[in-house]
Amino acid sequence: MDEDLIRLITGRKSIRKFDPEQKISHDELSRILQESCRAPSAMNLQPWRFLVIQSKEGKDKLRPLFYNNPQLLDSCSAMIAILGDLRASDYKDHIYNRAVAEGTMSEEERDKEVKLISELYDGMPHDAHLTDVSFNSALAAMQLMLVARAHGYETCPLGGFDKNQFDATFGYDPARYLPLVLIAVGKPAEEGFNTVRLDTDQIVKWV
Amino acid sequence: MDEDLIRLITGRKSIRKFDPEQKISHDELSRILQESCRAPSAMNLQPWRFLVIQSKEGKDKLRPLFYNNPQLLDSCSAMIAILGDLRASDYKDHIYNRAVAEGTMSEEERDKEVKLISELYDGMPHDAHLTDVSFNSALAAMQLMLVARAHGYETCPLGGFDKNQFDATFGYDPARYLPLVLIAVGKPAEEGFNTVRLDTDQIVKWV
Repeated sequence: MDEDLIRLITGRKSIRKFDPEQKISHDELSRILQESCRAPSAMNLQPWRFLVIQSKEGKDKLRPLFYNNPQLLDSCSAMIAILGDLRASDYKDHIYNRAVAEGTMSEEERDKEVKLISELYDGMPHDAHLTDVSFNSALAAMQLMLVARAHGYETCPLGGFDKNQFDATFGYDPARYLPLVLIAVGKPAEEGFNTVRLDTDQIVKWV
Repeated sequence: MDEDLIRLITGRKSIRKFDPEQKISHDELSRILQESCRAPSAMNLQPWRFLVIQSKEGKDKLRPLFYNNPQLLDSCSAMIAILGDLRASDYKDHIYNRAVAEGTMSEEERDKEVKLISELYDGMPHDAHLTDVSFNSALAAMQLMLVARAHGYETCPLGGFDKNQFDATFGYDPARYLPLVLIAVGKPAEEGFNTVRLDTDQIVKWV
């Protein structure tokens, strides 16, 4: 058991005030996002999409949609929006052809998987589809918060923004892209605080 | 930058064959679940619920609903089902009263938050509610996979099971609990393999 790593994972706290002088380079943010995307996903469809809002113009565009403390938006090095792509399965051939090219899958396995994806997703009820895309996109969101911490940054996940206006404001097709969360990233300028958790006997059953 | 932590996070691979002789104690599993629940959630409502399926009887009950390789089910030390609780906001008073008792929140802040939760969740459209519960539950799911790894175990997240039958089979109210994923946990008896990821320019925009 690696107690240091456990501490790093469980020690994450939401930070609401960042050092505005600390920038994160495009290269480092790209690396953080690549590492976040090592998260798993159903059928490896990776429905997560990211909009990195870092410029003054980008933050100003987000401002009227942002329900939290403006200081949080202004001080963070980047505000990363995560959207779920309801047409993630359009990439199935691209993804599975690459698996064959990289030698981790046979052509027969590819054909079977791609057929299964079509069967599952083409007629998927809307409720199940929303659940699938939201759940899988969140795996990358959590991984992003921990990867950022491993890079020496802290984060704050924010659900409080105008999700109905987000797509139109940033040029996404609202029928396709589901805005899920904003994650502020930066060097902390405050200590976070411990928040309450339910007891395990309230939320865990054993069988 | 903590390269050990980055390796731990990005080195996770799905494992489909575990050492069946390796058990994980109830105490260690409880600790893993507690650590997983340090994940954040919208309004700190923690909608994740866990069913730890570890006994022969539990696995046999799951078997007819399980679409994957039976070897995976038989060999893992525990199969952990994560369900989203559509009535997670019922715990709002419990959670926020504890925050006041622990001194991290004033009574005025508590009252404001509890009122906001009622306003947000009591009339929330079903689509938005499904998205919220699925997204937030997945944050704990991802953290669980990484915490397990820090404890020396590996995992496999599985969406392929009969979600329509799950609640009735295990005694959950289907109107309340949304079965989201099964996560197999154990000591690996095989090497995982690297899977393809989309390129960042396919999934990231900058503004």
